[in-house]
Amino acid sequence: MAESNSHHVNPWSNELPEDYESLFRAFGMQKVDEKLVARLPKKNRLWRRGIIFAHRDFDKFLDAFEKGKPLAIMSGIKPSGDFHLGSKLTAEQIIFAQQAFKTKVFYCIADLEALADNGQELAASHEFAIQNVADLLALGLDVGEENAFVYKQSENKNIANLAFLASRKTTLATLDAIYGHQNLGLFSAALTQVGDIIQPQLAEFGGPKNVWVPVGLDQDPHIRLSRDITQKLSPSFLLPCATYQRLFRSLDGSSKMSKRDPMNVISLNDDPELAKKKVKRALSGGRATAEEQKRLGGEIQKCVVHELMFFHFEDDDEALKKFQHRCVSGAISCGDCKAEVAEKVAAFLKNFQEKKKKLLPKARKLLSEKTWQL
Amino acid sequence: MAESNSHHVNPWSNELPEDYESLFRAFGMQKVDEKLVARLPKKNRLWRRGIIFAHRDFDKFLDAFEKGKPLAIMSGIKPSGDFHLGSKLTAEQIIFAQQAFKTKVFYCIADLEALADNGQELAASHEFAIQNVADLLALGLDVGEENAFVYKQSENKNIANLAFLASRKTTLATLDAIYGHQNLGLFSAALTQVGDIIQPQLAEFGGPKNVWVPVGLDQDPHIRLSRDITQKLSPSFLLPCATYQRLFRSLDGSSKMSKRDPMNVISLNDDPELAKKKVKRALSGGRATAEEQKRLGGEIQKCVVHELMFFHFEDDDEALKKFQHRCVSGAISCGDCKAEVAEKVAAFLKNFQEKKKKLLPKARKLLSEKTWQL
Repeated sequence: MAESNSHHVNPWSNELPEDYESLFRAFGMQKVDEKLVARLPKKNRLWRRGIIFAHRDFDKFLDAFEKGKPLAIMSGIKPSGDFHLGSKLTAEQIIFAQQAFKTKVFYCIADLEALADNGQELAASHEFAIQNVADLLALGLDVGEENAFVYKQSENKNIANLAFLASRKTTLATLDAIYGHQNLGLFSAALTQVGDIIQPQLAEFGGPKNVWVPVGLDQDPHIRLSRDITQKLSPSFLLPCATYQRLFRSLDGSSKMSKRDPMNVISLNDDPELAKKKVKRALSGGRATAEEQKRLGGEIQKCVVHELMFFHFEDDDEALKKFQHRCVSGAISCGDCKAEVAEKVAAFLKNFQEKKKKLLPKARKLLSEKTWQL
Repeated sequence: MAESNSHHVNPWSNELPEDYESLFRAFGMQKVDEKLVARLPKKNRLWRRGIIFAHRDFDKFLDAFEKGKPLAIMSGIKPSGDFHLGSKLTAEQIIFAQQAFKTKVFYCIADLEALADNGQELAASHEFAIQNVADLLALGLDVGEENAFVYKQSENKNIANLAFLASRKTTLATLDAIYGHQNLGLFSAALTQVGDIIQPQLAEFGGPKNVWVPVGLDQDPHIRLSRDITQKLSPSFLLPCATYQRLFRSLDGSSKMSKRDPMNVISLNDDPELAKKKVKRALSGGRATAEEQKRLGGEIQKCVVHELMFFHFEDDDEALKKFQHRCVSGAISCGDCKAEVAEKVAAFLKNFQEKKKKLLPKARKLLSEKTWQL
C-alpha cells in the first residue's frame, strides 16, 4: 500500500509519468511482448511500434477472440473540443478493433462529466459531440447498429444505475488508495466511468463478454476501479481488459497533448496552414550548430517532430526507418525535416477535413437531439 | 459542530429520538405553532393535533400559496412491502396537499435504493410498487397527469443526473457532518434522494417552485443535504421546505413502526382478524389491577392503543376527547377499550382492502412495465 501510494496516477492532470516501466510494474500491468503481438489477427502501427506497451488481461481478450466468444471494445470522449492527435490514437484503436476483431464499439459521449468538470451546458456538449462523431466517421468508424453503440451519458440510464450500484461496492478507502485524496465529485465521475466500462456486459447487450478498453496510462485508475467492482456487481461478468498506449506529447514536449493548451496541440480541425506553423515551432532534437548537427546527427529521442511521424504520419515502417536514419546520420537539418513533416500533416488535415465535412449530417442524425436541462 | 455531532439523526436506524424538542432546536428547525396552523386553508388531524410538530420554511410555502405561486409536494417509498400505519401518515399528507393546496404530487418509487440496500431485484420492486400505488389510490391520491408524477428511480434520468451534479457540490466532510461516518453507498443513496427532492424544480416541470417534503424526523439529514445543495446547482432554485411528523411507534412501543418487525406493525394489507389480535397485544397504559385502573385511570401517554386512535382511527376531535376521558377517568378497562379499537381498525382495513383491490389494475397501468436489469 505504501508503495502504491507513492505511485498515484492522476487521470485529471497533464503530467507525464517519468518512468513508464517502473510505473506499470508497481501496478501489476503486463508488458506487451512479441508473443502477444504475434497473436493479433492484424497489426496496426500502434502494435507494431510498441506504442501500446502494456496491458491487463489482453491475452484473455485474444483467447476469447480465438474461441469465437463475444467481444466488445469501449471508449469515449469528453465533448469539450475537437479531436486532436491524442484522441486520434485512441480512435484508431477502436476502429482497428472493429475491423480486425469484428467487435462492437461502445462509445461514450461524456457530456455529464463535461457539465460537472467544466460547467459546460449539455446543449453545447451536444454540438461538440456531433463534431467528435464526425471525426470518428471520417477516421473510419462504422456506426451501423450492429457494430457500434454511441451514446450520451446524460441520456443513458444504464450508466447511472451501474454507477449507483458501483458506489455500494466500493469504499472511500479504496477510492483514496486508487485516486489519492480527491473530492466526492471526482469519485462520482469515476463511478460513472465504471458504469461506462461495465455496460457492454448488460443483458440488453447480450450479457457477459470480454471488453477491451484502450487507454493512456493516465486512465489506469479507472480501469483498476472497474476491475475491482465488476465481479462484485455480478459474478458472471468478466473482468474488463485494457491496453495502455504511450501518451502523445504536446508539441513543446512538456506534457501530454491536451486540448487545454491549444498552441501545443494539433487539432484535427486546425487550418492546415496553422498546423504547418505549429509543426515548425515544435520541439526537435536539433544540435546547437549546423556543424554539430552534421557531425553528431539529431537527438531523435527528444524530437516531437519525429514522434509525429512515428505515432501518426508515416504508416510504412521501412519509410520510417529511412526518415529516422537521415536524422541520426546528420543528413538533414531540422528546418528541412520540419518543412517536410509540416506538408505531410497539412495534407492529412486537408483530406480529413473534406471527408469530415461530408459526414457531419450523418453524425447529427446519429445523436439524440434531446438535451437534459436543469 | 461538536454539538451537532452529538445529535446525529440516522435515517437508516429505527431508534426513536428521546427528546424531540431539544433535537429540533439543535438543528434549527422551526416549531409548528398556532399562528402557522391558522394560515392553512384546511386542517387535517395531523395539523390539528400537533402530529406535525416542526418545519423548515413551511411558512414560505404558505406565502407562495397565498400569492398563487407554483407549488409541489414530494414524497416516496422504498417498495419493499405493503403500506403500514407509518406510511399511511405520510400518504395522508400528500393527499391533503393535493386537495387543500392543489399542488402536484411527485412520488418516487425508490427501487434503486431497494436494490442497493436490500439486494431486491427491480422486477420484485415493480410488483411491490404496484401494491403501494394501489395503496395510495385507495387512500385517495389523484394520479391524473396534471396532479401527480409517479416514477421509478431506475427509470428516471433526471434523478441520476441531479445526483451526479449534486455530488460535485458537496464534500465528504459535509456528508460526514450530516450523516456521521457512513459508507459511500449510503452517500450515493442520499444524493439520489437529493435528486428526488430537486426534480420538481426542473425546467421540464415548469422551473423553480416551492417544494414541500413531509417527513419523519429521522429523514431530516436528507432535507438538510438537499437544502445545502439546491442553490449551488442553480441560484434560481428555491430551498425545499419540510414538515416533520412524530414517528408512529411500533405496537409494543419500543421503536418507530417499521416493516422490518411485522408482528409490531399494522400493515394495510393485514387480514382484519390478524390486525385485531395485534391490537389486543399492543402496549397499553393499563394499571396493575382493576381496582387501580378505576381509581387512577389509564396512563394514556404510554398507550399505543390510544395512539392508534389519535394518529389514525378517530378523526373527530370531540369523539377523541371522550375516548381519552373514559380512559384517564378509569371508566373503561384496557381489555374493553382494545376490543373496541380492534373493531375500528378491522373495519377500516376491510373497507380499505376492498377499495384497493378494485384499484390494482389502475396502479399496474400507471407504472412503466420496463425493469432495468444487470
